[in-house]
Amino acid sequence: MDFRELLKVRRAVREFQDREVPLSLIREIITDSCEAPSGGNNQPWAFIVITSREVRRRISVESKRNILALINAEPESALAKYKPILELDDFDVFYNAPALIYIAGPKTVRSAAVDCALAAGYFMLSAADRGLGTCWVDLGSAISSSELKEEIGLPDEYTIVATLALGYPVRIPVRPSRSDPRILKVVT
Amino acid sequence: MDFRELLKVRRAVREFQDREVPLSLIREIITDSCEAPSGGNNQPWAFIVITSREVRRRISVESKRNILALINAEPESALAKYKPILELDDFDVFYNAPALIYIAGPKTVRSAAVDCALAAGYFMLSAADRGLGTCWVDLGSAISSSELKEEIGLPDEYTIVATLALGYPVRIPVRPSRSDPRILKVVT
Repeated sequence: MDFRELLKVRRAVREFQDREVPLSLIREIITDSCEAPSGGNNQPWAFIVITSREVRRRISVESKRNILALINAEPESALAKYKPILELDDFDVFYNAPALIYIAGPKTVRSAAVDCALAAGYFMLSAADRGLGTCWVDLGSAISSSELKEEIGLPDEYTIVATLALGYPVRIPVRPSRSDPRILKVVT
Repeated sequence: MDFRELLKVRRAVREFQDREVPLSLIREIITDSCEAPSGGNNQPWAFIVITSREVRRRISVESKRNILALINAEPESALAKYKPILELDDFDVFYNAPALIYIAGPKTVRSAAVDCALAAGYFMLSAADRGLGTCWVDLGSAISSSELKEEIGLPDEYTIVATLALGYPVRIPVRPSRSDPRILKVVT
């Protein structure tokens, strides 16, 4: 797809068709993601793919519980606005997406957050290019249970940077409004 | 340009033609960058554009000095490998690019680093789509002088996330090697 067209169809998707995403396709998108630039070409990104709905549901429950605990401890947190929805038992933070991708980086790599964010940007564009939809779901990244971390293969020395719901979109959502670019200064 | 083609031509460019980049074109690329997703559609990114070669040169000198001081204070730093090149008087960290773009975010926004990295990813792709080249130059972000910060319009409450050299490439560099994607686990 033309890049200019892709900019229009890459939207945060929160309604997914009840249709599996083939693992081979997910692997292709991950390969594209690794074309992102990284500090010193260090490529510190690592991926976890979850297509088990049961595991995904348990992660959602775990993450909601941890974020609610955080909000209760810090009621002034910017996350507090999500409290009402997080308290709904049947709210799946991943919008029932058929697949869930974590992009994580080693805690020791200074640029890992930025590098993994670049890979996530490539992932979202590559997915849209293939007719898929993604949504970066930060509410799904709060995993503290060691058992669950082990179950999904997340080592202690890695931090989750991007949490992406993935699936076939029911529709391409309307583009959310954008502010005019904030250009602080042009020095000529 | 087709996205798959764009993945191939978006390379880190370190040799630029002696040719100005029109400001109108830079503004178009910035507008594309703002199509990136951001946490809660917060769009925390802000841009600084520098086309003055004299200012760019002073920033290079300032940043080199600060990073060398950091390396001298912490010889074990991962930056130490850059010491020999940083000590060369005529080394311009921006590779004499005709334009330099900072993408900065408010220190108070939790997701600013990741959001600005996404915008930077879009910037690099949009630039490549328009026949331009970029290089993320972290060595050009160490500005501590208040006078210089004021001169380029960087407020104290903002942190630089991305430092991008921009210009017309002499050639599209060869693709640096990529490791096979590191997939920690597939949970089906």
